Amino acid sequence: MTTARKPYVRPIDFKTRKVDLTHGSGGRAMAQLIEELFEQAFDNALLSQRNDQAVFEVPQGRLAMTTDGFVISPLFFPGGDIGSLAVHGTVNDVAMAGARPLYLSAGFIVEEGFPLADLRTIVQSMAAAASDAGVTIVTGDTKVVEKGKGDGVFITTTGVGMVPEGVNVSADRARPGDRILVSGTMGDHGVAIMSKRENLSFETEILSDSAALNGMVGRMVEAVPDIHVLRDPTRGGLAAVLNEIALQSAVGIRVREADIPIRPEVHGACELLGLDPLYVANEGKLVAFCAAGDAETLVEIMRQDPLGREAAIIGEVIEDAQNFVQLETQFGGARIIDWLAGEQLPRIC
Amino acid sequence: MTTARKPYVRPIDFKTRKVDLTHGSGGRAMAQLIEELFEQAFDNALLSQRNDQAVFEVPQGRLAMTTDGFVISPLFFPGGDIGSLAVHGTVNDVAMAGARPLYLSAGFIVEEGFPLADLRTIVQSMAAAASDAGVTIVTGDTKVVEKGKGDGVFITTTGVGMVPEGVNVSADRARPGDRILVSGTMGDHGVAIMSKRENLSFETEILSDSAALNGMVGRMVEAVPDIHVLRDPTRGGLAAVLNEIALQSAVGIRVREADIPIRPEVHGACELLGLDPLYVANEGKLVAFCAAGDAETLVEIMRQDPLGREAAIIGEVIEDAQNFVQLETQFGGARIIDWLAGEQLPRIC
Repeated sequence: MTTARKPYVRPIDFKTRKVDLTHGSGGRAMAQLIEELFEQAFDNALLSQRNDQAVFEVPQGRLAMTTDGFVISPLFFPGGDIGSLAVHGTVNDVAMAGARPLYLSAGFIVEEGFPLADLRTIVQSMAAAASDAGVTIVTGDTKVVEKGKGDGVFITTTGVGMVPEGVNVSADRARPGDRILVSGTMGDHGVAIMSKRENLSFETEILSDSAALNGMVGRMVEAVPDIHVLRDPTRGGLAAVLNEIALQSAVGIRVREADIPIRPEVHGACELLGLDPLYVANEGKLVAFCAAGDAETLVEIMRQDPLGREAAIIGEVIEDAQNFVQLETQFGGARIIDWLAGEQLPRIC
Repeated sequence: MTTARKPYVRPIDFKTRKVDLTHGSGGRAMAQLIEELFEQAFDNALLSQRNDQAVFEVPQGRLAMTTDGFVISPLFFPGGDIGSLAVHGTVNDVAMAGARPLYLSAGFIVEEGFPLADLRTIVQSMAAAASDAGVTIVTGDTKVVEKGKGDGVFITTTGVGMVPEGVNVSADRARPGDRILVSGTMGDHGVAIMSKRENLSFETEILSDSAALNGMVGRMVEAVPDIHVLRDPTRGGLAAVLNEIALQSAVGIRVREADIPIRPEVHGACELLGLDPLYVANEGKLVAFCAAGDAETLVEIMRQDPLGREAAIIGEVIEDAQNFVQLETQFGGARIIDWLAGEQLPRIC
């Protein structure tokens, strides 16, 4: 074969130029953006084939598939950006099936006028997050909308992975007697975003916990294949996840306030912002439900991982026809942790 | 198990209410929207488990994965809407690997204030399109952005499917001597959208060709497993696809204007709108490259399908170090069909 003729001569000026409608039009400018930004950053043979889809081998078995749109504002925040967040969020949603994440796709909806420099930073951040998590971004799509019809950039990522044999994690598998575990402190991500948005500064900067949990989950399911439920408490926080699981499994839940790890500075910021940390989003934490006899094993495995140092057993599943989530307060009382009725934190992920 | 308590009492008023930020907040309103809209319309056991991912069996083999964002304006157009378009586009991108599409995910980014009635119409249209195409929408996500930060609704769909053994379709497999086929008339979708956008009316209404091609492709690869290239000429139209394939395969391409099917009314509208139909998007057509000896077989198979009645052999692959796409005009001349330099039709899909 002869060497292919490039349809463009000068490289894109990422420093000063902005995204315009030609970058989404299917022509020369889009092809160049794909080559000089996405292919360079994501760097894999499947993407470089430039087909409208990626084709890869899978073994016989159960595939987990998940999708998530990211519309976070601001795009850059303490501890991450929309790019790393999109990868972490999707890797985690695959991992929450007990699965090993393998491949991701990424769809970008970019607003006309968005700086190409920022788009490059975001794409490179995605590439780094994917590489760290051991997953490959194999296919994607870019659309551009007119100024005022979007908000910088939205990213929708989809992930697939294989579920190991014998693993059967699902939100409807919580059973009375099960122990409820969290992998660490609650509320860090949401408070980091809100602090940035409200221009609050604290003595200790609060960072998002955005991180990929698939390594830790891999070790958890290897040791305890019969984990009943795994869920990452993102939008709506721990409260939303516990209520969803109670509903899906038709059980009640009781958790102890004193055992739920929350950073003092997150507590403080929540008071200032009028937020309840149990409803605040996390992006690098998980909630696990397992048989009572497996709880200590799982906590130990989590604590050996840098992302699970503060793992804790926070409560248990009970029988309750009302599917209530109850919190035993520090002072010995109890209150219902209800479904979030209104909106707490828009565009937190 | 006891019957689960519903966290909401009154059904959503789809007739008069609008989307607000609570529908994307991870709380009660979002759970209710998922139950009363998405689960009802898409209606499958995987979705109803309400996990953050779907888990399904796959055989050992090659999986095709593709993603596409849909930002089309207007959302409703002659011949379809953003919902059916999102399903067709993604089913087609899986099929263009020669694969059998199986499962889709759907991510919605909705603007605050968007009528719930319209959202329901779109979701029901997606459900019908998926059912017709024989695919299942198994997982999804909904985000809501503030008024003025989006444009009604954007949908990002991802599809997966299995590639039959022996099939190896890829944009880098075009070889000198290959025949180039199209499944029907070019330009219908783009012209339908532009006519609606510009409020043009013609004697014969021009409809989008939006349709799922997986049935036809299944019969094509069964008869000719060695199809070299398949591509749906969406954004950038036939011209963009031929240039991309010429570049990826490092070949030249020659097509005959007289053999490219274009509806007279599309020709007329293009003249009025100042468009070249070869650069105009299609959403229910394919381009195929195959060995010369397979061309007649494939054209016959396509013509037996309602979506391929006007299939035609339009040209062939030649050697050309410059990777040019040449058009033999109706008058015996020849011109280069170059890469689209600027933007022709923004937000056409």
